[in-house]
Amino acid sequence: MTSPADLLSVLEEHAPTVHRALSDLGRRAVYPPDIPVQAAEAKATRYNATIGQITDGRGMVAALPSVAATLAALAPADRSRALLYSPIEGLPELRERWHHWQRPAGAPPSSLPVVTAGLTHALSLVADLFAGPGRRVLVPAPFWGNYRQIFGLRTGAEVVAVPAYRDRQWQPLAIAEKLKELPAEEPVLVVLNLPSNPGGYTPNAEERAALVRSLFDAARRQPLVVLCDDAYSGLVYEPEIPVESVFWELAGRDPRLVPLRVSGSTKEFVMFGARVGFVTLPFAPDHPATAALENKLKCLIRAGVGSPVALSQVVLLESLRRDGVREEVAASVAQLRERYRALHAALRAVEAETDAVRALPFNSGAFALVELPAGLDPERVRRHLLLTEDTGVISVQPNYLRLAFCSVATADIPELVRHVVRGVESLRAAVPA
Amino acid sequence: MTSPADLLSVLEEHAPTVHRALSDLGRRAVYPPDIPVQAAEAKATRYNATIGQITDGRGMVAALPSVAATLAALAPADRSRALLYSPIEGLPELRERWHHWQRPAGAPPSSLPVVTAGLTHALSLVADLFAGPGRRVLVPAPFWGNYRQIFGLRTGAEVVAVPAYRDRQWQPLAIAEKLKELPAEEPVLVVLNLPSNPGGYTPNAEERAALVRSLFDAARRQPLVVLCDDAYSGLVYEPEIPVESVFWELAGRDPRLVPLRVSGSTKEFVMFGARVGFVTLPFAPDHPATAALENKLKCLIRAGVGSPVALSQVVLLESLRRDGVREEVAASVAQLRERYRALHAALRAVEAETDAVRALPFNSGAFALVELPAGLDPERVRRHLLLTEDTGVISVQPNYLRLAFCSVATADIPELVRHVVRGVESLRAAVPA
Repeated sequence: MTSPADLLSVLEEHAPTVHRALSDLGRRAVYPPDIPVQAAEAKATRYNATIGQITDGRGMVAALPSVAATLAALAPADRSRALLYSPIEGLPELRERWHHWQRPAGAPPSSLPVVTAGLTHALSLVADLFAGPGRRVLVPAPFWGNYRQIFGLRTGAEVVAVPAYRDRQWQPLAIAEKLKELPAEEPVLVVLNLPSNPGGYTPNAEERAALVRSLFDAARRQPLVVLCDDAYSGLVYEPEIPVESVFWELAGRDPRLVPLRVSGSTKEFVMFGARVGFVTLPFAPDHPATAALENKLKCLIRAGVGSPVALSQVVLLESLRRDGVREEVAASVAQLRERYRALHAALRAVEAETDAVRALPFNSGAFALVELPAGLDPERVRRHLLLTEDTGVISVQPNYLRLAFCSVATADIPELVRHVVRGVESLRAAVPA
Repeated sequence: MTSPADLLSVLEEHAPTVHRALSDLGRRAVYPPDIPVQAAEAKATRYNATIGQITDGRGMVAALPSVAATLAALAPADRSRALLYSPIEGLPELRERWHHWQRPAGAPPSSLPVVTAGLTHALSLVADLFAGPGRRVLVPAPFWGNYRQIFGLRTGAEVVAVPAYRDRQWQPLAIAEKLKELPAEEPVLVVLNLPSNPGGYTPNAEERAALVRSLFDAARRQPLVVLCDDAYSGLVYEPEIPVESVFWELAGRDPRLVPLRVSGSTKEFVMFGARVGFVTLPFAPDHPATAALENKLKCLIRAGVGSPVALSQVVLLESLRRDGVREEVAASVAQLRERYRALHAALRAVEAETDAVRALPFNSGAFALVELPAGLDPERVRRHLLLTEDTGVISVQPNYLRLAFCSVATADIPELVRHVVRGVESLRAAVPA
């Protein structure tokens, strides 16, 4: 029977940085040899009385008629899989297909992805493993506000915001410069979110090379776990911007730098409500560290949510099986590109006439950030836009608005920008400088 | 803006036991006024650029064609709801319908249920709120092994196993007797799991009255939070056994005893892989403690998994909307009752002939426990049954096997029991006494 000590000694030998960077919870976690393990061993038995699932007695779900009717488009075997428990690590076929879906040509080894209950769940599992009291998590700012709950509130780690922009320019060396201020040899969890939320930014080839180089340099001083939050993977709109995740440039090159990839079907497959996420490790499927870390992930998945969502996994699987799925995703990205272009054009047009808003560079993802004139609180601007302009945006401290172009029709985008500008100008006129 | 201190002072005034029993994490948790709140405020705007979801620009999801095809049986508005984010607390219509589904006639006030990503997730949220280092969680034993991970490993609380059987009789006073050994005024989290896993037991009217009385008595010494894990709710097979959750007898009667109900569509709606769970509070929807605790639950849901599974919520909703759904559920329970009766009969028959197995009383749920002869390790028996009898069961320490009758066809049940008995007897013969 595997013990936490067994797993730790495997990791110490085969993935020393992981071993050093684990949180207390990450060190304790071990997948127990109880029901799922025993049920898996009994899978082929003639008399299988292991599992508390309601089946027809031959392994197929005994679905309620109304539930079966709602899922009528699924083949019976898939419908059964959708309604019975998924393995804790995910459906094998989905893990294989996502593995092939996500790996670029010539990619370094990576594990089969472990399935999670959505992308946030994948982030929180990595937080459980590598964050905790006394640990620092470096996050480029502005960042998605929920990072504070995921990495800070839940685990007790300290979220360190690292300004990602200076003079409205994205700073590839920001993280590495911050790392220099931290004690040598202190393990650090670094979050990269590219394309970014709320920034909508992905570095160009030159910036990306500088970022990657700076992280490997930093790893000489500090063991690093780099979490690539690839939520917006694939949503890149300019031909010269590299589309593939930085994860693939970080994996397998330096034992002192361990990247983890978090991805999901949320955006690329337009399955926001379905909750399918993945954690991919930078080790081959048969690497000893893969089994040890999967064991810990499975423990934490089971302790937090039980098995991941089988129904959503089957819906995603159905799409991944189709020959035309890459074209479907490309068509969705093309639609977003149109909205992206409309927003770019609209912002350029108003910037020629007013300094009410100044766009930060954006080329990807779902959002753009605009900077407000000095002295205007973004939350106050947001409320003003709601009340006087029938316009909803997200306020981002200290002085930004986030505009989501992914959910506004192309034809409405110029009007959206006009309303934002008009609201900012009227508020600025009313506020004494 | 709500702060943790605001929530704590509401709870101190309106739910003092909750206030005293919160874990450190439970005390810290507060739902931040960021994107979901801002998006909700912008819902009615003409130009809504708040949400990072891919829509047609008029609020309906821009689904991939293959995903839409898989969900073709859903009306377009429901399909859109299934693929967009659910509110963090769940879809309003589902919360209303589950509220009506679960409440017995004459029930005391209860909150609208908060939706979770499956029943385990609901348990882990309660663990986050009320377990933690230095806190004891009392659990009748034998219990579902995953409780150790949910309540102990993740939170650092101490899981105290309280033997639920003596001489193969279920003990209604076991928890209350254990509570007497603990320091007065120490807040304790008590877990009740009825029908039980692995026991398949629900107390009769007399035992239930004794249990309820003993808990109210105990609450005079100690503030109690009683988690009713109603995973197997409704699966009761004997007419004289009360079907409704003990939650409804504990709610609203004593400020020193706060019951919480955890339920789900997993078993009753045969939706194991769909992952829809609920947490219900023992306060009316407009009670101040309801808003404060929902705020904390929403913080923890968002930090751990993001929004709960919209797709599964819509599938469950579709069934709950049907006139005939109670009959569908009743038909599923009737099928289980048939298997239950077959197992009862088969066990009675073999017990007349051998003492190889001794069934513990069972009348509900999905399982029966059988006691093994002294000196036989259940894990060894389990392996022996796998290897020599083509039969899969779950081993439960110290001396039980769990037989899942819910997933074995009625016709196979006598043979299942024969194989188990034959395996136990052959192993017993081979093992020196």
